[in-house]
Amino acid sequence: MEELNVDNILKNGERIEDLGLKNLKIIQNPEYFCFGMDAVLLSWFVSKKTKGAIDIIDLGTGTGIIPLLLYGKTQANSITGIEIQEPLVEMARRSMELNGLSDQIRIIHGDIKKPGDEILPNSYDVVVSNPPYMRAQGGLKNKQDTKTISRHEVLCNIEDILVFSKRMLRDRGRLFLVHRPERLGDIIFLMRSYKIEVKHLQFVYSAITKEANLVLIEGRKSGRPGMKTDPPLIVYDEKGQYTDEIYKIYGMKKPE
Amino acid sequence: MEELNVDNILKNGERIEDLGLKNLKIIQNPEYFCFGMDAVLLSWFVSKKTKGAIDIIDLGTGTGIIPLLLYGKTQANSITGIEIQEPLVEMARRSMELNGLSDQIRIIHGDIKKPGDEILPNSYDVVVSNPPYMRAQGGLKNKQDTKTISRHEVLCNIEDILVFSKRMLRDRGRLFLVHRPERLGDIIFLMRSYKIEVKHLQFVYSAITKEANLVLIEGRKSGRPGMKTDPPLIVYDEKGQYTDEIYKIYGMKKPE
Repeated sequence: MEELNVDNILKNGERIEDLGLKNLKIIQNPEYFCFGMDAVLLSWFVSKKTKGAIDIIDLGTGTGIIPLLLYGKTQANSITGIEIQEPLVEMARRSMELNGLSDQIRIIHGDIKKPGDEILPNSYDVVVSNPPYMRAQGGLKNKQDTKTISRHEVLCNIEDILVFSKRMLRDRGRLFLVHRPERLGDIIFLMRSYKIEVKHLQFVYSAITKEANLVLIEGRKSGRPGMKTDPPLIVYDEKGQYTDEIYKIYGMKKPE
Repeated sequence: MEELNVDNILKNGERIEDLGLKNLKIIQNPEYFCFGMDAVLLSWFVSKKTKGAIDIIDLGTGTGIIPLLLYGKTQANSITGIEIQEPLVEMARRSMELNGLSDQIRIIHGDIKKPGDEILPNSYDVVVSNPPYMRAQGGLKNKQDTKTISRHEVLCNIEDILVFSKRMLRDRGRLFLVHRPERLGDIIFLMRSYKIEVKHLQFVYSAITKEANLVLIEGRKSGRPGMKTDPPLIVYDEKGQYTDEIYKIYGMKKPE
């Protein structure tokens, strides 16, 4: 792999973050939405629930964090990311270039509501998404702002993801989401309406005494009803430090 | 209160269990379904989510454990239990007599699918139920057996509870259930279909490293979408002993 000149690949205000996984790196820009723990937990959840040479697509891939983590954590046959916001697509493609993975991870500029010919029906084993969590309320300002689009359902909502998944997943293929527990009623109701049955949930609690603040969800196309709820994932221990499990998921050693 | 003669009130094979709560006692018979931790957790969940002089009805009250616990833990205005199995109704009524609570807790012999005139529409603030958890499979033997009826959806399923709740709850009244997480997809889907929106979930994990084995559910008639997931309730600690929280819920002191 040719050594890239970092000065050529980075634009103003951008920085490179090391993912601590097989030497993978990603370009981030604080002006846009930077990836958080949710993307890391979702990738870990997908990797523990899947195996083999699967075809994966990440909806609303943003800076490409989930494709990169899944490249590092799975034996996927193909990984595709689709993103509607042009500046993020361009940045994600540069991250793939930086890692020498432009051929292995495809970043498509497109709208999941109107997927182009390069995305074929019944051709994915896994659809994954870390979607906007919040409803698009009437009073939202700056609907063109990239952070707003990443956080609010301005351009993509849960139902859009389900329409896409029902069409593009192979039979018995799986949809993985991370979302706020607040929206779980909407998600379970809609998933069943689209015949994608929830099979696993895992709740993430910031501390053992706190409400859940994230939920990891696995649904299966044409799956039968009946789900399991994995052990609670606790982020911080009583001393306010990351738990052993979080260190493990991040591939880091806990400081002594 | 007149002291009752225990020999007169107990039948063959029956025993009296002290609930460790305001001197309340209950008659149990190992031939029937005896109450378990689920009834205790559900009553605790209801008592922490409600207040004031509310009207409560318990569907499939069995031996009357939930009415007794709610009598001890809430300031309810009225508590009613309805039970379809005659031997359990008779036993529950004797338990109320044993506690001198026959006037305070009404035990109705009836079918929630065909409630009689003594149950009026729009007249309860809280419907509570610890229903049969398992689907009534084709191959079920002994459909008349009381344990089978208590465990399998032979005479009452989730939808029956929702039909009843939608009709009998006051507007904004609440439905509280304990169930297996396995069935959560069915429950959330059906609740929304009946316009009873899930507002709180609390998962019960036998240990912090184990899958959830129970879920406590609060739904609100005509509620808006949007739920919270309460802190994980862990039953056993690393040493295999009850956690502090379980001791607290049972009103017991943890042995030193």
